[in-house]
Amino acid sequence: MAAESGSAAAITESLEGRLHALLATHPGVLVSTAESCTGGEVAHRITAVAGSSDYFLGGIVAYANDAKHRLLGVSDDILETRGAVSDECARAMAEGSRRAFGSHVAVSTTGIAGPGGATARKPVGLVFIAVAGDAGVFGAEHRFPGDRGAVTAAAAEQALEQLLDYLERMLTTQS
Amino acid sequence: MAAESGSAAAITESLEGRLHALLATHPGVLVSTAESCTGGEVAHRITAVAGSSDYFLGGIVAYANDAKHRLLGVSDDILETRGAVSDECARAMAEGSRRAFGSHVAVSTTGIAGPGGATARKPVGLVFIAVAGDAGVFGAEHRFPGDRGAVTAAAAEQALEQLLDYLERMLTTQS
Repeated sequence: MAAESGSAAAITESLEGRLHALLATHPGVLVSTAESCTGGEVAHRITAVAGSSDYFLGGIVAYANDAKHRLLGVSDDILETRGAVSDECARAMAEGSRRAFGSHVAVSTTGIAGPGGATARKPVGLVFIAVAGDAGVFGAEHRFPGDRGAVTAAAAEQALEQLLDYLERMLTTQS
Repeated sequence: MAAESGSAAAITESLEGRLHALLATHPGVLVSTAESCTGGEVAHRITAVAGSSDYFLGGIVAYANDAKHRLLGVSDDILETRGAVSDECARAMAEGSRRAFGSHVAVSTTGIAGPGGATARKPVGLVFIAVAGDAGVFGAEHRFPGDRGAVTAAAAEQALEQLLDYLERMLTTQS
């Protein structure tokens, strides 16, 4: 587990370190997460940074569809017609996380980490990531290579990247 | 991140691998998490195992006290008189996770990961972990050494150990 603890320098250069540096200069901006395929990895990376409790309210790992519906308010219509692995679901999850935690900005992940769960139209590595805030909801579709661990690690990295991008634009526009 | 992906052998021997092996032979037993200080690390380790969606419904990372209250139903009385880092809070979080997800067994963590947040009575490394299920709620107090990464890694390992112990007793008694 030594690699997870990381050095102070590694954390500063990481996306979660840059998120921390950005939000340290914008006190009061609160973030949250909603994760399916990454299973808590995004929240874990954010909270690895000391002082993250100043801006991170929490996250919901909604692995089961029922949890996506009950805890994040994803509609049955989306789950039945688009499926849990869809842009629509990712967007609804991010908006649901904002509501659940009362955060300003939330990021979500939903995808096929593999090795099971793939279909002809939804292969292993397909991941939808969305960020929701007052500036609107931004969603993107990704295909990550590799095994389960590689897919979820790449998805978590990309989720932090999209969250940071959204916040940088939002905070630059405001100031 | 290579260490996190792990080899198939490493995952089989890990606590999350043993959890998977146990629940594969007891289909229908559903688990969930409620994490504060571990920030999603317990959920992340459980979901690193392929097929974990068969028994893992999800988890709530309740970093802020308001999230512990609103999403997990921890009472204001517990938060005000015992504090978020207490055996009572850990027990209420585990019970709240069971309710939120409709799981059979839930595990929770709450503690001081450091370096900030410590008080004279609640030092860095103090972590309360509880497991709730039909067999009752079992809580334990721990003090883990080391820095933030070491404390949360040790707490996540201990949470998986207590969850596995509880399930082994429960399923042995039932069968």
